[in-house]
Amino acid sequence: MAQDMLLYWGSGSAPCWRVMIALEEKQLQGYNHKLLSFDKMEHKSPEVLNLNPRGQLPTFKHGDNIVNESYAACLYLETQFKSQGNQLIPDSPAEMALMYQRMFEGLTLNEKINAVIYYEYFVPEAERLDSVLKRNKDALASELKLWEGYLQKLGTESCMAGQHFSLADVTIFPNVANLFRYGLSAERYPRLAEYHTLLKERPSIIASWPPHWQENPKGQDTLNDV
Amino acid sequence: MAQDMLLYWGSGSAPCWRVMIALEEKQLQGYNHKLLSFDKMEHKSPEVLNLNPRGQLPTFKHGDNIVNESYAACLYLETQFKSQGNQLIPDSPAEMALMYQRMFEGLTLNEKINAVIYYEYFVPEAERLDSVLKRNKDALASELKLWEGYLQKLGTESCMAGQHFSLADVTIFPNVANLFRYGLSAERYPRLAEYHTLLKERPSIIASWPPHWQENPKGQDTLNDV
Repeated sequence: MAQDMLLYWGSGSAPCWRVMIALEEKQLQGYNHKLLSFDKMEHKSPEVLNLNPRGQLPTFKHGDNIVNESYAACLYLETQFKSQGNQLIPDSPAEMALMYQRMFEGLTLNEKINAVIYYEYFVPEAERLDSVLKRNKDALASELKLWEGYLQKLGTESCMAGQHFSLADVTIFPNVANLFRYGLSAERYPRLAEYHTLLKERPSIIASWPPHWQENPKGQDTLNDV
Repeated sequence: MAQDMLLYWGSGSAPCWRVMIALEEKQLQGYNHKLLSFDKMEHKSPEVLNLNPRGQLPTFKHGDNIVNESYAACLYLETQFKSQGNQLIPDSPAEMALMYQRMFEGLTLNEKINAVIYYEYFVPEAERLDSVLKRNKDALASELKLWEGYLQKLGTESCMAGQHFSLADVTIFPNVANLFRYGLSAERYPRLAEYHTLLKERPSIIASWPPHWQENPKGQDTLNDV
């Protein structure tokens, strides 16, 4: 069933990883895929641009349906394969409300992480200011305290929106994994660290773990003072 | 049915407007609501912070379920009231794929609009650079050309993801309305202008039109050179 799917992806990209976790959870192993290199600018190659005018990864196709945005692909896969694999949107209105709420707050988390770890990538050298990077780090610290509180309230061994693994985890876990790869302190953020430890043993996450992280488990220490 | 709903909102805010359009489309008129002033910082008032630790609008509650993120609220309302009012997620896989894809590309459109029209709000005076604002405007122009192409491909009188009004329109129309309010040229962006003209007559959009826009139909001309 997954043979009519094609994914172009980059290793370590949170958006790509989201789609790969969703594919694993929905038992869609066996999809066609091609690992591309951001460093070699392969995401701007004609084969990607042909499906994705933005030249971004992931680029994902199911039959003739193109769904490149990671959140879009996750929602599409869950809806199209609702009864296959693990259910990723809870039926209960209260759980569903919390799941959607956290899932979309995850976009703010993503943005605040990127504003620190990719600061030099996004901002040309002549425009960089230590004061801005410091402000971005402070904003990330405030953001992370919110998430610590959310997890605290849910209790130990909880997923992001309650007891069940959901699209909130599919979309947010790659961001949390990035935080710790970039040196976030497990002592200062114990609930996020516990969440990271719990979910990294999940089969869908092990199966989709970024290959260059396996070769090179430790990233830069950009976040060790956040 | 809508009496167990409460919306805190601000006039002209695209995220608030999305939720209000969704409520109209799902025939949920009669919900409780309170118009707050961003200028008076009422979005940071205790009654909002009590439901929304981010102190942002919209802040939305249905019974005990709190769903503040605008995309989350739209998805939640469509799922909880699937058979009520207008169906906002198409059944056909191809239409659904396009709808989710456009809906989430809409977040990039939103970001690129905000990087121009709210540049002075987001960036402290001492850090502002004409070169950055110029780059943001160029990025917005490239983004808008993508959307012109999308609408061109769909043909005249089309909604954002095909013939049917969907969550792609609920989420993106407020951004398009902002573009023209801030002076975007209908001559340079004729398909976006046509889309704007078509949808602004839709009852859900008329009913939720920002009240301060009615008093003051023309905004600043920030985008007239984009």
